[in-house]
Amino acid sequence: MSTAYSPGVAAVCREIVRDRSRIYDLTSKGNMVAVVSDGSAVLGLGNIGAEGSMPVMEGKALLFKELADIDAFPICIDAHEADEIIAIVRAISPTFGGINLEDIAAPKCFEVEDGLQDLGIPVFHDDQHGTAVVVLAAMVNALRVVNKEFADVKVVFSGAGASGIACCKILQVMGVENIILADTRGIIYQGRDNLTPAKEEIALTTNPEGIKGDVQEALKGADVFIGLSVANLLTADDIRTMNKDPIVLPMANPDPEILPEEAMRGGAAVVGTGRSDMPNQINNVLAFPGIMRGALDARAERITARMKVAAGFAISDLVPEPTPEEIIPYALNKDVVPAVAKAVADAWQEDTSQ
Amino acid sequence: MSTAYSPGVAAVCREIVRDRSRIYDLTSKGNMVAVVSDGSAVLGLGNIGAEGSMPVMEGKALLFKELADIDAFPICIDAHEADEIIAIVRAISPTFGGINLEDIAAPKCFEVEDGLQDLGIPVFHDDQHGTAVVVLAAMVNALRVVNKEFADVKVVFSGAGASGIACCKILQVMGVENIILADTRGIIYQGRDNLTPAKEEIALTTNPEGIKGDVQEALKGADVFIGLSVANLLTADDIRTMNKDPIVLPMANPDPEILPEEAMRGGAAVVGTGRSDMPNQINNVLAFPGIMRGALDARAERITARMKVAAGFAISDLVPEPTPEEIIPYALNKDVVPAVAKAVADAWQEDTSQ
Repeated sequence: MSTAYSPGVAAVCREIVRDRSRIYDLTSKGNMVAVVSDGSAVLGLGNIGAEGSMPVMEGKALLFKELADIDAFPICIDAHEADEIIAIVRAISPTFGGINLEDIAAPKCFEVEDGLQDLGIPVFHDDQHGTAVVVLAAMVNALRVVNKEFADVKVVFSGAGASGIACCKILQVMGVENIILADTRGIIYQGRDNLTPAKEEIALTTNPEGIKGDVQEALKGADVFIGLSVANLLTADDIRTMNKDPIVLPMANPDPEILPEEAMRGGAAVVGTGRSDMPNQINNVLAFPGIMRGALDARAERITARMKVAAGFAISDLVPEPTPEEIIPYALNKDVVPAVAKAVADAWQEDTSQ
Repeated sequence: MSTAYSPGVAAVCREIVRDRSRIYDLTSKGNMVAVVSDGSAVLGLGNIGAEGSMPVMEGKALLFKELADIDAFPICIDAHEADEIIAIVRAISPTFGGINLEDIAAPKCFEVEDGLQDLGIPVFHDDQHGTAVVVLAAMVNALRVVNKEFADVKVVFSGAGASGIACCKILQVMGVENIILADTRGIIYQGRDNLTPAKEEIALTTNPEGIKGDVQEALKGADVFIGLSVANLLTADDIRTMNKDPIVLPMANPDPEILPEEAMRGGAAVVGTGRSDMPNQINNVLAFPGIMRGALDARAERITARMKVAAGFAISDLVPEPTPEEIIPYALNKDVVPAVAKAVADAWQEDTSQ
């Protein structure tokens, strides 16, 4: 014990004090991720608090370990203001090689994530960026199936929370110019009432024609529907108002905005949901384990747009010949994590070699 | 995965929201301890910061697991004020069933520990109370060897930091009336210069004769020397000035205040050090695993004086016939943790049944 603990351990401490980067080799930090939540937006349960969120964070930690061999630890924070959460995560960050933010309500989640970007370790809000990456992957292959381009399509979102806005932004990075978001109060346009700061900001770069009304109004002539909202929002008739060969991705959980058979009846060319018992499951589990694995492997200091886009393409590339029934790999496909991890690590190298 | 994670996990969350105590059965909380440090007083290395302290906290976590089957996790805090550390530990406490504070400098450590006593989970500062408990255990049996009583002995401490003051207080609980503490500036007495608040407070109940001078002065006629200070402080001649059959516990690490053979030459009846290669190793590892095990088993809301005293006696009882060469069990004796855990859990029951 004198070798393994006191006084032997002092030599290890001294080495880290001499060269701080050695903490990655000499402790568990390099492979340890905190799964952080304040329990303010847990699954469909809402604000159930830090203790109530604990099982979800433990489950997430298990997925990190199982799928990407990342040691992950639940940190359930009993604090509610963004600046408190930022200060706490910042203070405990020496233990961790990365931070996965989880189930933190919007708009607080934006502020928390932004406030931690200078930590020097990757900070990833899965609800935003995990979803955005898998939606990107699904979109890449769905567009190949219907032979359309990002630059040409009109995309309608139902749901303008953290994940909807993150998906919107990654599609904008891909060149989509005509995006319309709708929330429970209808289409988002510049100057509308009841816009959060995040929605005000996204209104500046979306809905170029200034359309007003409900999501059905937005859907007319659209090429893509992306649902991150509530069950049973659309009917086959709504799908019929869309452009030719529409892509319909109703991802509300557990019940989608429209059931796949109903969407097909309305003429959908490709349908994907969040459900494991339906074709084309668009599940964050395709993204977050490999993204964090790659970021840790590269010792990335943050998660960049390039890394997220690279992750999306790594996922879509695993289905080389997409069909309407297969635009995205099976959620637990063992090839996904290594492919995503490599793409993400390479993207960080590119980001830092410029 | 739909059973193990989303949406199946929601049922577990709901159950915890319904009855918060269920978090102990349904998550890892009940057996999970945070090993918390700000790296401000690490071993003999001083203030080396959160990152530098990480190996020690990992080592401590391993000892908890190995010796008491407690899941422990290092939390190295990059914050320096007591109120910040309190706020951070408080905020992350939902994840944990207990908190082990470690290597936090005095007097900050007192403030941090005091500020967390209402958390509802045991918060234990090992440097103070772990040391106090093993010193109590050693003292119980050493006094049996020399046939003296707590109430009658004069005890001199070299070292009035967190551990010295905690040891002093537990001996006062046991009825010792004549205790003199000395720090690097000499004997502590009421009204002396350069006293911290903790030393000012302890001056009120120690040194009843108001002796001044150095530790050698204090030692004259003393029955017990307890060293928590620096190497090579005393000589055989100093021991010769003590009362008949003196007990000498020089625990400075790695080199004691006086080597055992030198103390014996001066007439010491019993000698114990912190060293594993000398007889009577007085090592915190005898105390903290069992104390936390017992506190978790009993779901104790804090660590009480009764629990600490019970732990001390549980350790001393494992040496039923103490001799000068054996006043305390071997540090890794497998009987220690279960005996301490049971005594501590029983003590909490007594505390709460009154």
